[in-house]
Amino acid sequence: MVEHARNSRLSRRSVLVTPAAVAGGAVLSGSASAPEKAGVVRQITLYAEPLPGDLYGYGLAPGEATIPGPLLEIYEGDTLEIELVNNTDKRLSIHAHGVDYDVNSDGSPLNDSFNEPGETRTYTWRSRKQVDIGGNRFLPGTAGYWHYHDHALGNDHGTIGIQKGLYGGLIVRRRGDLIPDRQFTVVFNEMLINNKKAPNTPMFEARQGERVEFVCIGHGNLPHTFHLHAHRWADTRTGMLTGANDPSPVIDNKNLDPGSSFGFQVLAGEGVGPGAWMYHCHVQMHSDQGMVGLFLVRNPDGSMPPGAQAAIDRFRQHHHVAAPQADHSNHHG
Amino acid sequence: MVEHARNSRLSRRSVLVTPAAVAGGAVLSGSASAPEKAGVVRQITLYAEPLPGDLYGYGLAPGEATIPGPLLEIYEGDTLEIELVNNTDKRLSIHAHGVDYDVNSDGSPLNDSFNEPGETRTYTWRSRKQVDIGGNRFLPGTAGYWHYHDHALGNDHGTIGIQKGLYGGLIVRRRGDLIPDRQFTVVFNEMLINNKKAPNTPMFEARQGERVEFVCIGHGNLPHTFHLHAHRWADTRTGMLTGANDPSPVIDNKNLDPGSSFGFQVLAGEGVGPGAWMYHCHVQMHSDQGMVGLFLVRNPDGSMPPGAQAAIDRFRQHHHVAAPQADHSNHHG
Amino acid sequence: MVEHARNSRLSRRSVLVTPAAVAGGAVLSGSASAPEKAGVVRQITLYAEPLPGDLYGYGLAPGEATIPGPLLEIYEGDTLEIELVNNTDKRLSIHAHGVDYDVNSDGSPLNDSFNEPGETRTYTWRSRKQVDIGGNRFLPGTAGYWHYHDHALGNDHGTIGIQKGLYGGLIVRRRGDLIPDRQFTVVFNEMLINNKKAPNTPMFEARQGERVEFVCIGHGNLPHTFHLHAHRWADTRTGMLTGANDPSPVIDNKNLDPGSSFGFQVLAGEGVGPGAWMYHCHVQMHSDQGMVGLFLVRNPDGSMPPGAQAAIDRFRQHHHVAAPQADHSNHHG
Repeated sequence: MVEHARNSRLSRRSVLVTPAAVAGGAVLSGSASAPEKAGVVRQITLYAEPLPGDLYGYGLAPGEATIPGPLLEIYEGDTLEIELVNNTDKRLSIHAHGVDYDVNSDGSPLNDSFNEPGETRTYTWRSRKQVDIGGNRFLPGTAGYWHYHDHALGNDHGTIGIQKGLYGGLIVRRRGDLIPDRQFTVVFNEMLINNKKAPNTPMFEARQGERVEFVCIGHGNLPHTFHLHAHRWADTRTGMLTGANDPSPVIDNKNLDPGSSFGFQVLAGEGVGPGAWMYHCHVQMHSDQGMVGLFLVRNPDGSMPPGAQAAIDRFRQHHHVAAPQADHSNHHG
Repeated sequence: MVEHARNSRLSRRSVLVTPAAVAGGAVLSGSASAPEKAGVVRQITLYAEPLPGDLYGYGLAPGEATIPGPLLEIYEGDTLEIELVNNTDKRLSIHAHGVDYDVNSDGSPLNDSFNEPGETRTYTWRSRKQVDIGGNRFLPGTAGYWHYHDHALGNDHGTIGIQKGLYGGLIVRRRGDLIPDRQFTVVFNEMLINNKKAPNTPMFEARQGERVEFVCIGHGNLPHTFHLHAHRWADTRTGMLTGANDPSPVIDNKNLDPGSSFGFQVLAGEGVGPGAWMYHCHVQMHSDQGMVGLFLVRNPDGSMPPGAQAAIDRFRQHHHVAAPQADHSNHHG
Repeated sequence: MVEHARNSRLSRRSVLVTPAAVAGGAVLSGSASAPEKAGVVRQITLYAEPLPGDLYGYGLAPGEATIPGPLLEIYEGDTLEIELVNNTDKRLSIHAHGVDYDVNSDGSPLNDSFNEPGETRTYTWRSRKQVDIGGNRFLPGTAGYWHYHDHALGNDHGTIGIQKGLYGGLIVRRRGDLIPDRQFTVVFNEMLINNKKAPNTPMFEARQGERVEFVCIGHGNLPHTFHLHAHRWADTRTGMLTGANDPSPVIDNKNLDPGSSFGFQVLAGEGVGPGAWMYHCHVQMHSDQGMVGLFLVRNPDGSMPPGAQAAIDRFRQHHHVAAPQADHSNHHG
C-alpha cells in the first residue's frame, strides 16, 4: 500500500525517479522475495547547464536546470544509472553521498571520473539493505537523506561548481517508509539558501496536516544551524521515533555544516496551527544577512490563515543584504 | 514518588514552575487517565529588564532579572502561560524552542508577536506526548532540553537581545524522568559563558554523588564545543542509556552551536572523586580567552576536598582577557 | 573467541596495550564473574619528545614519538597506568577524554597535574561498564572512541602542545566488540590532518573486505567535517546498527570539531570495490588547501587495483598549499 500511496502522488512529485527495468544480478539487494520486490535499475538523464547570473544547475531535461537540482529518490536495493549530459563549457561531474559506486562513478578528478565540456557520461549508484551479522550487529544499509554535488568544476573538489549551484538532494528510502505529501530541499551554501538571499529564498507551502519532508544539506565554507519554527523532529534516520523508549533526542535546531545532510518528516502545523513560520540559519549574522525563509502552512482547505499574508508582506520588506536574483529555485511539491 | 521527590526539592529549585490550575480542553495532552495526570496549565510572569553594563535579563520578579533567565520546567503535556512584562524601553519578545505555540506566541516580529516598550503580553507554550502511529513509528513528543530567547530586540531575529542576555533554559520533562538535585544552565554566547569571561564565569557546585543536570545552550555567531572534565554522558534525550544494547555514543564533548541545546544528568564526581573540575569550550582560542569555568564537586558532607581551594585560587588568577563585569549570573541549584 | 581474534593480531597492532597485571580492588569494574574477566591494570610508558620542525609527539619508546601518538586501547573495566616521561624542555601533560581519573591525573595545570621539563609522572585512567539502575535507565559506561592530548604546554589549556602534535587516539572497547584488522587515526587539527597537508597526509591502506577502524579526532580552532568516499557508517557507538529497527542515522560526513572524537568500522571496499578513495574535510577551502588524503583499498590479494596508481600519482601532483614536512606520521595498521 505504500506503493499505492506513492504512485497516487507521482503527478505532484517531479523529483521521483520512476522504474526503468527490473534488475538482474547487478543489483545488490539481499532479498528477492515476492512481497518485497527485488531492487530495480532506474535510469535518468541529467543535464548540467549554465544559468543566468554565472550560475549552474542540474535538470531532468534541457533548459530545465534548477538550484538545487531535482530531488532524486530510490528505494533501498535499487540502482540508479545517471546519464549526465554536460551542456557547459566547463569540466564537471556528479558525486553522490551515501550510495555505492565504483571508482569510475566517484565523480572525482582523482579517479578520472568527470565530464569534459560537452561530454556525456554515465554514473551508476547502487544501494543495499542492512545486513544482520549476528550479535545484535547490523551492517548499515543505504537508506538515508543524502545529496549529490559537482566534484570537478573549478578544482578537484568541485568548490566552484558547488558555489554556483551544482547540488541537489538524494533520498534512499527503505520499503515501508512513509511517503510524504510534499518535499522541500533546503541547502545552506555559504550565506545563501538554495543560492538565494531573503526575501528571495524559497517559500515552502503545505496545507495543515499534510506530511511534509525536509531534506537539508550543507555546503561551502561556513558552519550553519538549521532551525524551523513551531515544528520539531527526532534526530533519527526518519525524524520519527521507533518506540516509546527510543533514546534519540527530539530537536528543532541542528548543525548543517559543509557536506552534511539530514531529513525529517513533520505534519504541517501539527499542534500549532496554520501560519507563516520561519525557517532560518540560527547563526545570528547569517539570518540577519538573509539566510531565512518561510514555511507557509495553509488552512486544510488551502485558503490563507489569518495574518499569514501580512507576515509574508513583512518578510518581503525585510532589509536584508539581498541583491536581486533571477529565479531558478526548485520548490519541490 | 517522582512527584514527591520533586516537591521535596522545591525550596532549592528557583527554576521550577509550580502548578497553577488543572487544564481544561486547551491542554493537548492525549491522556487523562488517573495514574498519569492530565496536563496542567502553569502560569508565570516574567519581567524583561535592563541590567548594568548595557545588558538585559529575564526574571521571575521585578528587580530579579538574571543572565541566563530562570530555568523553566514543565512536564510533557503541560501548558505554560507566560505573562511577559517589558520593563525596558526596547521592543523585545520571548521565543521558545521545542514547544507548541500558535503564531501569536511565536515571539517574532514576522508574526507581529512581541512586546512594545512597557507592554505586557502573554505567550502560551504547549507540550504533548509522543504518539504511536503504528509500524514502529512514534510522532515525537515535546520532552527535551530546550531554551527560550528574545526574537525582537534590535532586529527581527533578536540578535541584539540575545547578545545582551535575553535567554534561558527550558526543560520539558517526561513523567517518570529522574529529578536532579542540582541544575546548571550553561550558555555559550559568542566568546562568553552566561555573558561572562573567566574567572567570572559561574562556578557550579554539588556534593559528590548528587545528581546534577546540565542544560547547555548555544547562541551568537560562533561554533563551540562543550567539554566537561571527568564526566561523560550518552548522546540521548536524557544523557543516560535505555538498555544494554542502546546504540547511542557516550561523549564528553559536544557541538554547542547557535540555537542548539542539549542536557544531561551525571552523578557528581562518580568514579573520579571530588575536586575542582573544568568545563570549557574546547575551541582552543575560546578557552584561552575565557570560555572556561569550574564544576566544584565537594565531599559528600559538603566540605572542600584536598586541593580544591588551591585550584580555585589558580583559576581566579588566570590571565584571561576578562574585563570586570557586574554579577548578574544565575547559578541554579 | 574475541580474545583469540585479538591476540592473533597483536603483532600487527602496535597500538594495542598488553595486559600487565590483574587488577585488585582499584579496578572499578562491576563484574568479576568467571566468563567475563575482571578489569586488569595495564601499564605503559609514554615518552613526550621534540620532533623536527618545532613539533612534539608521544611515543612508546624513546626516539619513537609520532604524530598522532600511539593509539591506546583498553577493554571497558580495565585501568591504564601511564608513566609519562617528559623528554622536552617544556611543561606538558596528558589529559584523557572519556575515562575516569582523579584530580591528580587530570593533566591540567588547574589541578597541578602536569610534568615539569624532564619530569616523569604517572597518570591513571580507569574505565567502567554501564550500570542498570532500573526503569529502562543505564548509567553510561566508558566504552567509546576517545582521545588524549596535552593540556599544559604553552598555556593552561595545552593550546600549543596540541598545535604541535601532542595528541592521540584512545579506544575503550566493550568485551564482545568486533576487533578490526586495521586501525587508522585521523586528526583534523587546524588546516592539517595529523599535522600534515596533502600530498603528505597519510595514505591508509587495506585489502578489500578487511575490517578497518577509523578513529577521528578534532583539534584546534576551526570547525571541520570528516567525509569518506564510497563508505558509510551508522552514527552510533560502533558505527554499526544494533537491530533492524535501530533509529540511528547512517552517515558519511560528520562534524569533527575541536575536542570531539568518534570512530567506526567499515569493510574496506564493501559494495564499491577496491580503489583509491578520498577522505577529506568537506569544508571546501579546507580540502582545497590540503585537508585531504587517500584510503587505498587494494585487491583481496594485496595487489593494486586498476587505476589506483594513476590516482595516487595525480594526488601527489596536486597543487595544494603544502609546505614540505618531515614524516613523523603514524599510519596505524
